[in-house]
Amino acid sequence: MASALVYRASTTAPVNIAVVKYWGKRDVKLNLPTNSSLSVTLSQSDLRTLTTASCSTSFAQDSLTLNGEAADVSGARTQACFRALRARRAEMEAKDGSLPRLSTMALRIVSENNFPTAAGLASSAAGFAALVRAVADLYELSDSAERLSLIARQGSGSACRSLMGGYVAWRAGEADDGSDSVADVVAPASHWPEMRALILVVSAAKKGVSSTAGMQQTVATSGLFPLRVSTVVPANMTAMERAVQKRDFATFAEVTMAESNSFHACCLDTRPPIFYLNDVSRAAIRAVETINAAAGKTVAAYTFDAGPNCVVYYLERDGKAVLGAFSAVVGGVEGWKEGGYGGGVKLDEGIAGVLRNGVCRVIMTAVGEGPVTSDQHLVAEDGQLVRG
Amino acid sequence: MASALVYRASTTAPVNIAVVKYWGKRDVKLNLPTNSSLSVTLSQSDLRTLTTASCSTSFAQDSLTLNGEAADVSGARTQACFRALRARRAEMEAKDGSLPRLSTMALRIVSENNFPTAAGLASSAAGFAALVRAVADLYELSDSAERLSLIARQGSGSACRSLMGGYVAWRAGEADDGSDSVADVVAPASHWPEMRALILVVSAAKKGVSSTAGMQQTVATSGLFPLRVSTVVPANMTAMERAVQKRDFATFAEVTMAESNSFHACCLDTRPPIFYLNDVSRAAIRAVETINAAAGKTVAAYTFDAGPNCVVYYLERDGKAVLGAFSAVVGGVEGWKEGGYGGGVKLDEGIAGVLRNGVCRVIMTAVGEGPVTSDQHLVAEDGQLVRG
Repeated sequence: MASALVYRASTTAPVNIAVVKYWGKRDVKLNLPTNSSLSVTLSQSDLRTLTTASCSTSFAQDSLTLNGEAADVSGARTQACFRALRARRAEMEAKDGSLPRLSTMALRIVSENNFPTAAGLASSAAGFAALVRAVADLYELSDSAERLSLIARQGSGSACRSLMGGYVAWRAGEADDGSDSVADVVAPASHWPEMRALILVVSAAKKGVSSTAGMQQTVATSGLFPLRVSTVVPANMTAMERAVQKRDFATFAEVTMAESNSFHACCLDTRPPIFYLNDVSRAAIRAVETINAAAGKTVAAYTFDAGPNCVVYYLERDGKAVLGAFSAVVGGVEGWKEGGYGGGVKLDEGIAGVLRNGVCRVIMTAVGEGPVTSDQHLVAEDGQLVRG
Repeated sequence: MASALVYRASTTAPVNIAVVKYWGKRDVKLNLPTNSSLSVTLSQSDLRTLTTASCSTSFAQDSLTLNGEAADVSGARTQACFRALRARRAEMEAKDGSLPRLSTMALRIVSENNFPTAAGLASSAAGFAALVRAVADLYELSDSAERLSLIARQGSGSACRSLMGGYVAWRAGEADDGSDSVADVVAPASHWPEMRALILVVSAAKKGVSSTAGMQQTVATSGLFPLRVSTVVPANMTAMERAVQKRDFATFAEVTMAESNSFHACCLDTRPPIFYLNDVSRAAIRAVETINAAAGKTVAAYTFDAGPNCVVYYLERDGKAVLGAFSAVVGGVEGWKEGGYGGGVKLDEGIAGVLRNGVCRVIMTAVGEGPVTSDQHLVAEDGQLVRG
């Protein structure tokens, strides 16, 4: 007997690292943020999720496999994405009776990162972006990336920014139903392709408070947070968009650092306090300050998400000054790409020692593009899983 | 030839640790704060400054000796205190011609702490309080402690709170000349004598940013700080005063911890960010959270000034729960007073290890009285210095 047809589509999606931070929901169910945010999409050469979405009448039920392990699909966030995507497909099928009824078939989704989860890099953004993009491709939806961002947002807030390349804003929006809480491209990667990122992966003993739980504790208990939402972030969004449009790195960097500090300040002001920065993170901050002081201008910016890892943004032209300083302390670790970065400023021995002991891996990357269709499928034509 | 008469007065003055924090000046010259603050005066059995103020026609010039070393008296802050005190004495002398003209004589002031400066405990508060109290006694001024707090404030803001015992508020005031920026006793030590403090002295590699410099960086650059001044602190002052009056430890503790976190959050939100808390400080916070969770109520509160040392407030009746938990990790260090504190909650090994490695000394103390006249003089009758 011939086996049932298996429909497939595969895509890769990027990680993004915010420079104006998302922290706090105004609607937990719809994943609507308290404030707008802005991120840089990172190159998929270094960090990407590859996802294959498939469906077939032969599949018994929806399933999701992440990095070789079965994952739960019953969660509200995953279900919200499936439901929205199926609804879009069902509309098409209702209009055109010749289309296969994919919306009624079970989904088999397989996803793999090209970086270790243990690295503590936010993978949910890339993961949900890839999931939504792959299913949308499988369903041959005509929706724009902006329209799809409404769906990805329900999976993981920051995922909406990973549906596009370059410099991407997520507008908080005002509508109760979230219909205007959508991502858009402030500038494509090609507008400012010189942006580089050095990620210092810190060996953390333990994972801290999850961002999902943490941000709502902040909303509920921080006395300072309301001013961040009402005043600090709106000003930073305006300044950051202008900086990106004008390719003004100094402003980009100053706002990036101020935003990271403002976000972590609100975490500290939460009851009980949330700490993501540790002594290694602080040493990285001091290293960036040293580099900027030595350069006599702002050539590097640090930012931290919900963990101790430091992301250092800099421009290609300043690679020598920035990487030169770091090469003496983390030049030997996994991920370091040699490039003859001599002559950087010498870091204070206290700072250097903490970084040497605390940074276990680096990722050297750059601004990059949005999701890309892939012909590498993690589900075979017969529906079986393929190891990526 | 008979030597000139030496006039002397000696006093001890206490350290105070704020539970509503002073951070930020609205007038740098007059040392006027952006917000009110409230502190607990600590017992002088454990921490005190002893100061002798003396004057004589035989002294060539004003001098100040701190812990055996000559200190500069030309600084604006010390000069402001000297000037104000001399002016008060000169008024008395103008009214009563029989009084010796002490206001015209050079001052010789000698001061010693009974705790190592290396401990990193704010000693300027006790130091300036003792200086002002000793000179006021030398001059036989009739001014109340509140009136003297106006003078001490000009030496070091928090010094105004060390002129009184118990639970002391420093009112920010509104007048441009600072005439209403004064300390007062919210409740004497006798109102709530059960308050205890365990100070965990953290071995810090290096002194961080001074509070004098740091607080004005915060005022100038923090986006969140205005809300702390306008809203957060006023609410905390009201709640704290009520908690002290009602001896409501749970509220006292919750506000104390929230205040410490709010203050350090504003430090982190400063450009460049100021970090006083380190990994040891964070472990102390987690230890207090563990103790409170085990007790099923809030029996301990942490607070941090401009450094990594942790001050844990608790009530005598909860000594077993609080000290019992800490005894297993810092029970052996200098300053620990054995008291049979068995049966405390066992701290997580990660937290315990960090505290064991990072706490070099403890001070176990309690709420205490204000300055006390002493008959131990650090200046002899002939004007020579005496080693205390």
